[in-house]
Amino acid sequence: MDDTRVKKGEERLRQLNYANSIGPKLAEISPELNRYRKEFAFGDVHSRPGLSMRDHELVILSGLCALGYAQEELKSHINLGLNAGLSRQEILEIFIQLAVYAGFPAAVNATFIAKDVFDARDAKGIKQ
Amino acid sequence: MDDTRVKKGEERLRQLNYANSIGPKLAEISPELNRYRKEFAFGDVHSRPGLSMRDHELVILSGLCALGYAQEELKSHINLGLNAGLSRQEILEIFIQLAVYAGFPAAVNATFIAKDVFDARDAKGIKQ
Amino acid sequence: MDDTRVKKGEERLRQLNYANSIGPKLAEISPELNRYRKEFAFGDVHSRPGLSMRDHELVILSGLCALGYAQEELKSHINLGLNAGLSRQEILEIFIQLAVYAGFPAAVNATFIAKDVFDARDAKGIKQ
Amino acid sequence: MDDTRVKKGEERLRQLNYANSIGPKLAEISPELNRYRKEFAFGDVHSRPGLSMRDHELVILSGLCALGYAQEELKSHINLGLNAGLSRQEILEIFIQLAVYAGFPAAVNATFIAKDVFDARDAKGIKQ
Amino acid sequence: MDDTRVKKGEERLRQLNYANSIGPKLAEISPELNRYRKEFAFGDVHSRPGLSMRDHELVILSGLCALGYAQEELKSHINLGLNAGLSRQEILEIFIQLAVYAGFPAAVNATFIAKDVFDARDAKGIKQ
Amino acid sequence: MDDTRVKKGEERLRQLNYANSIGPKLAEISPELNRYRKEFAFGDVHSRPGLSMRDHELVILSGLCALGYAQEELKSHINLGLNAGLSRQEILEIFIQLAVYAGFPAAVNATFIAKDVFDARDAKGIKQ
Repeated sequence: MDDTRVKKGEERLRQLNYANSIGPKLAEISPELNRYRKEFAFGDVHSRPGLSMRDHELVILSGLCALGYAQEELKSHINLGLNAGLSRQEILEIFIQLAVYAGFPAAVNATFIAKDVFDARDAKGIKQ
Repeated sequence: MDDTRVKKGEERLRQLNYANSIGPKLAEISPELNRYRKEFAFGDVHSRPGLSMRDHELVILSGLCALGYAQEELKSHINLGLNAGLSRQEILEIFIQLAVYAGFPAAVNATFIAKDVFDARDAKGIKQ
Repeated sequence: MDDTRVKKGEERLRQLNYANSIGPKLAEISPELNRYRKEFAFGDVHSRPGLSMRDHELVILSGLCALGYAQEELKSHINLGLNAGLSRQEILEIFIQLAVYAGFPAAVNATFIAKDVFDARDAKGIKQ
Repeated sequence: MDDTRVKKGEERLRQLNYANSIGPKLAEISPELNRYRKEFAFGDVHSRPGLSMRDHELVILSGLCALGYAQEELKSHINLGLNAGLSRQEILEIFIQLAVYAGFPAAVNATFIAKDVFDARDAKGIKQ
Repeated sequence: MDDTRVKKGEERLRQLNYANSIGPKLAEISPELNRYRKEFAFGDVHSRPGLSMRDHELVILSGLCALGYAQEELKSHINLGLNAGLSRQEILEIFIQLAVYAGFPAAVNATFIAKDVFDARDAKGIKQ
Repeated sequence: MDDTRVKKGEERLRQLNYANSIGPKLAEISPELNRYRKEFAFGDVHSRPGLSMRDHELVILSGLCALGYAQEELKSHINLGLNAGLSRQEILEIFIQLAVYAGFPAAVNATFIAKDVFDARDAKGIKQ
């Protein structure tokens, strides 16, 4: 099996300073889905140079907020977004903007998850 | 009635070089909803300085794509996004990225609307 | 086959002065789904006395608006809602209220369908 | 900054006898989103006289049920709906009606949240 | 009241070796919604012979995954699907396939619920 | 660029006797998204042997129905499902089953698209 794309995805995740629970938990139950996540989601798509790393995260955070039900992924990508250079305030601004288009419940859900992530980063002494 | 926020929304829409059918059609059937759209959506929220005008549109386009059913608003905001400085390719990249998180049908729907908007702009001789 | 519930659903549809294209079209392609629609949707549930007929329609119109993609059913239930005693302005107020919770695109979509229904009723000389 | 609309929203929330955790928690993390919630959601829209206070809540509860993912807001608005004059049985009837249009999982989710709210009110000795 | 359809639904649930918390919990708070669930969802629809019992569950699991927010029902139907003859791997394959159409977050959510169900069955010594 | 996965996707589409408008239209506006569709959606995932070709389509049709807004993809996959061995009646049964879980509007939308596809196949003299 050719691992070029898996490695490219893993490299992208390293650049994003990825450290959370989706990867290992998913690898345990559905290694195939985890492989596609590395290969396709991060190796192929997130690595595309047509948008900056920060803009990829801006797009993903906006899409996840609008979906309304993507708590686990939001938690992960709020961390990745901060690692990619978005400020905490910019992340809150995304959700304020989407209150208009996806409704207040989607925006409030995402904002509450942001609070949890910010608190966890504070507890670890991460400034941004 | 205080028109400060309406005027602020109209000013924002002018900056975005807004010209489409949602505003007039909505004004005719539900002038109140159209007023909130100008006051709240554009006067209050879109005008917030915490994100650039381009980033507001990046966020909105991403949210609309993920919703899946927002054809009219996508058509409008693809135009506004281009007017705010996004390139055609960047708009296509947004939808490629969201194929991962919202699924291919949402991404394909949005991409087909982009094609219609690009064609209409070509027909009017608009370069971007 | 026992037709009690079908008849109850048909009676409810008669009380709502139902006349549109979902029923006959659905009967042609999927008579079973149409039967459940009469039996369950209108015979069992819409006929429940715990809410007034007007409130049943208020609830349904709100749910359909929030779903975002239910154009055919919205068209049908805007007519049924008017027949059940909701005023045109009340129907527009529903969608204004849901702009807050489901977002502006869902509200705008529903409002545009309302305009089509109101215009069609005007053309037929229906006052309400 | 003009606080007229904030005060109008706070007055509306007082009329609804509002007491829950969304407001204070949101104020802490995103005071701007909380301000729009008071100004726009409650000051502008919920205060509109075209629907009764009870009907505003009927509409909101229906929309939230159909969204499927709005647990926090449902918990809040089931309380507000009861305070606005809806009976417990009427709230259950909303979700029964929406099982037809939004599907059983959305209806069951909302019904289980209603149970939690009813139990909490019983524990506080609130009759309705 | 005619209980034929309730009994048919209960018989279907017995064939599926149903044992979980939705039924009893729902019966306590909204016996009417629980009755429709037995009568309509299981008595009328799930009992239809046009699809095998396994295919009914394949369809339901796919729909629930795509909705994104249906955690309780997914937990229930992963058990019912296994009881109806789907293998654990087939259930994971459903969610892999739907990562393409409903997006990775919907697929990951469903996969994590599958892990919880598989673990609970392991703890009870259930092989499949 | 390695075309192995593209070729695998094209081979899968050939096995499904694919002939519709999504591919060529998408290739024109966003060749990259079309490439991922062939590589990932059909080459990697649809080609997985853990489900039969018919079951892949059963899963996809169910997911698309539940999304509610995926008209173009439904039209395409109703054709692919028939080509993969599903009968017309089985396809209608999928949507009947999902009326329970995704609601009647999603089921009715999908059923009406099925009617269009069946009519088009009749016009071409395709028996199944």
